[in-house]
This record gives sequence, structure tokens and C-alpha cells, in this order.
Amino acid sequence: MTRLFGGIEAGGTKFVCAVGSGPDDLRAESRLATTSPAETIGRAIEFFQAQRDKLGPLAAVGIASFGPIDPAPGSPTFGQITSTPKPGWANTDFGGAVGRALGVPIGFDTDVNVAALGEWRWGAGRGVENLVYLTIGTGIGGGGLVNGKLMHGLVHPEMGHIRIPHDWKLDPYAGHCPFHGDCFEGLASGPAMAKRWKRPAEKLPADHPAWALEAHYLALALVNLICTLSPERIILGGGVISNDRLLPMVRAGVQQLLNNYVQSPALLVSIDEYIVAPGLGNRSGVLGAIALAEQCS
Amino acid sequence: MTRLFGGIEAGGTKFVCAVGSGPDDLRAESRLATTSPAETIGRAIEFFQAQRDKLGPLAAVGIASFGPIDPAPGSPTFGQITSTPKPGWANTDFGGAVGRALGVPIGFDTDVNVAALGEWRWGAGRGVENLVYLTIGTGIGGGGLVNGKLMHGLVHPEMGHIRIPHDWKLDPYAGHCPFHGDCFEGLASGPAMAKRWKRPAEKLPADHPAWALEAHYLALALVNLICTLSPERIILGGGVISNDRLLPMVRAGVQQLLNNYVQSPALLVSIDEYIVAPGLGNRSGVLGAIALAEQCS
Repeated sequence: MTRLFGGIEAGGTKFVCAVGSGPDDLRAESRLATTSPAETIGRAIEFFQAQRDKLGPLAAVGIASFGPIDPAPGSPTFGQITSTPKPGWANTDFGGAVGRALGVPIGFDTDVNVAALGEWRWGAGRGVENLVYLTIGTGIGGGGLVNGKLMHGLVHPEMGHIRIPHDWKLDPYAGHCPFHGDCFEGLASGPAMAKRWKRPAEKLPADHPAWALEAHYLALALVNLICTLSPERIILGGGVISNDRLLPMVRAGVQQLLNNYVQSPALLVSIDEYIVAPGLGNRSGVLGAIALAEQCS
Repeated sequence: MTRLFGGIEAGGTKFVCAVGSGPDDLRAESRLATTSPAETIGRAIEFFQAQRDKLGPLAAVGIASFGPIDPAPGSPTFGQITSTPKPGWANTDFGGAVGRALGVPIGFDTDVNVAALGEWRWGAGRGVENLVYLTIGTGIGGGGLVNGKLMHGLVHPEMGHIRIPHDWKLDPYAGHCPFHGDCFEGLASGPAMAKRWKRPAEKLPADHPAWALEAHYLALALVNLICTLSPERIILGGGVISNDRLLPMVRAGVQQLLNNYVQSPALLVSIDEYIVAPGLGNRSGVLGAIALAEQCS
């Protein structure tokens, strides 16, 4: 009999909850607005309890959470959202609450790590052991696998906050990161584009110079990720990437910046299969949460 | 009976070969000038054959090699130095030659990954599973462990070639990397310091402004490594680091640039134990090669 898992993609504005065993077997799904922790987590638990009564027991629940979080099993604060600025959510024992209510093992990780896991399990990351998933939207975040295991470390990666070169003559916009000004997220997130160009990214015409600048910042950041992690594939998700002309410009920018230094056919020849869009579209997170549940059950 | 291992730290100017089982049990050591592959590798093999006759069999040999190399066991070119610009050494089957001559398993990895392993096994990296080792000297290179395993991926990390912000008004030096100009290595290696300030780094007085600029570049790079990998410790080795005043400036720079964004006591409180000098001094490489042999035997 197929084992069933629960998955939660917990974002700052909405929660997506699902029950199933994979992309071709999603039995139920629900979207909830993110309000207070008690209400939102409570409604997610009710959803899983109702589905369990209808579909049968869940083997585990995986949670892809906005952060910062503590994703370290064994840590006294494992499963918690820690120092988030989101009102009411700091120090919320999210994983603990779900685990106690449902009596199942809980997988708990960052939204981007879980999306990386989903892409690795069923999407554009299949077949590689070293993978980066980067999302460029309201914020910029990255996660991934090294040697087939999700990256954690001291806390968890915060790839959106790396520093990249910023040519102030070319781009006088100071950046909007409240912590770092012109870090990668400060220069290249959706809100940075909107503030720089005085309209939302999705309203910028496809041939607007905004996109060449955006591709340049993305290429700089990807070069840094390539030189640091040597991933076998990079998956770019998030709202800003939905412009179809962006990915080819990013690939060309990466090749130009690397300047043949890294002698790998993946970069020199088949970069179209190296820097790619998510294979699961906007379902990487919720399916990744199911994959995370599968891993921890 | 203690098992004995061989280790080779293979640099572009010299090879260090050793036999033993750890830092307190090094039975023999030899230094060879790096000339042609046939001669240099041949003399290394002769050293191990002579020691084997004297001390007993070797369980394995670990090699820490200059690069680029192929460190992927199972790859058809595993054990080879690949596209190095060093005359005569490109496509040298280094690991294969040593393994065939001595009839033992071979561990083969980058000099920096092996140094990271040595520090993890016996030095300043003990007790953590996520570690970066960065050397700043003639070049800049980095390696490390994620989840307790050495990082490889597509090829291997090339951390010296990340791009960092370069304020041309503050520092008009264009950088000396033949591939990337003002990448991290182009701005902050020993030769970059020498060219910028018209004298070798070791001749610059300890209070020269060169060191504040160097600390700034190192801090920028470390922030990027922290945001990408979330290491639990960073070890800085190499000739440029031997100025005692540099490390405290780098730590302060990292804290200033992160601006309390990463909420970890390791960064906020005990950064003196987070960014550290090698515990094995200049022996990280050769002892790491012994640790690598130990792992592959």
C-alpha cells in the first residue's frame, strides 16, 4: 500500500498544505492565509486530521518554512521559527506543534532547501548529488544539496545576502536590504527592481534595460555560488524569473564572467541544462515538503 | 598494531611526502622540488618504497594536489591533474601512477580540501561537520566539509575566484587574475598586495594601510562563504595570514558587514573561535593527506 505523507509550504502570506505520495499522487490540497501562528498552524493541523480520517494515516509531515528557522534535528529549538521579523511568529514551535497534534515524525527545513529537495526528488534536479535552488522574488533565498544531503551548517544558507560588485555609475540605486543595502537581494529582488525602475518587475517590458541589469546581478551571484559550491546544476525559481528572456541572458553572463576558468562541459557547452527553471513549476515547495516527510519517516 | 599511511602534499614548487599515522606519529618525511611529473612522482614513489621496506606496509596513500584536478572516485580521469597551466603537468595521471607503483588505495583531492580534512581530523576544525579552509598566499583557494564530507560537485570549489565589491576610488588597483581581473584572488592574494603596494606583503609594516584593505577584502569574501555555506568554523591559512594583526581586523569586518543578520552566537559573541588560524600550522596539508589515506583505506 502506498504510504501517505503530509506537506506544508509555509510562506509569509500563505500556507499550502497537501497530502499524497508524489507529483502524480496528490490526494488533497488546501491554501490558508498566514495570520497568527495559533490560527494558521491550527488550521493546517485540522486539514491533516480531516484528511487522515478520510484517506488513512500519514507516515510523516514535512514542513518548508519561511525563516530564519532551526532545522537541526537534535537541537533544543529544532522545528522553530526563530528570529523572524514577522509579527507574532518569532520563537514559534511550528514543527513541535504539528508533530504533537498529529503524532507523526516531522521534517522541518527552510523553504528553499525543501524546494531544492523537491526538485532533486521529482524535478529538474534529478540525477545529481550537488544542487543549488535559488528563488528570486520578494526576497532572494537559496538552498541545496551537497553530496546528496541538504545543507545546514551553523544555521542555514542565506544566499540572498552575499555581496556582489555594484557599479554605482551604471546603477545608482543604493539597494533596499535593511541589513546590507546593496547585497544581492538588495540589488536584485523583485522589490529592488520595482524601486529602481518605479514600477513592478512584471510591468517592465521584456526589452527594458532592467532585464539586462538583473541578468548581470544574477550572473555575478551564480558565479559566486559556482566557485564556492561547484554545484552540478542550478535551478532558478521565483516570480522574477518568469520573464523567458532572463534565463538565456543569465547563462551568457555566467559564461562571460567565468571566462573559461572552470573547465567543465556543463558550463562551457551545455549550460542550457546547467542553469534551468524548476521542473515542478511553482510546486517545488509543497512537493519538496512531501519528499522531506518521506525522508524522515 | 598501528596502521601506517603515506601522505603527499603536492605543490607547484615542492612536494612534501610523509609516512605515519597522525601528528604525533610521523615516522619519515621528505621534501622534493617539483620538476617534471615523471621525475617528481618517481622520486615520491621511491621515498614510499624505501620507507615501506624500513617501516612496514602502507595501508593507503593520500595525495593533496595542486590543480585543477579530478577528485571524483569512479570518474575515468580520477586521480589526474587536468587543465593546469603548469608546463608538462596537464593530464598527468598522478594518483594512478602512485597507486600502481605501490599497490595501495589512493586518496586524491585538492590541496585545500585535504588541508580542511587535516584540520578537521586533528586541528582547528575538530568537532564540527561544516568547515571551510581558506588559504591566502600566492593564490587563494578554499575547500571544506559539508555534513562531515569533503565538497566536490561539478569539479571542485574555486573559492578564490568569487567576485566581491571593489571600490575603485578607494583602491584603483585593477587586480591581477588573468581570468577575472579583480576577483577575490585578483585583489587579495600575496602577488596582488605586492603589485598594489610595490613591495612584497611580508615587507609591509604591520600598521601599513595595506592590511586594513586586505582585511576588508577577506571580510567580504568570508561573508559570502558564510551566507552560502553556513560553515560552523572558518580556518584561514597561507602566507598572507601570518601578520598577527590581520585576523582580528577580518573578524571585526565580518561582524560589521553581516550587521547582526545571522543570529548565531558563533558570529555575534565568540567570533574569535569562529574565524581561526590553522591548528596544525603549516602541516595541515601533509597531515590532511595522511587523514585522506586513512579515510580511503
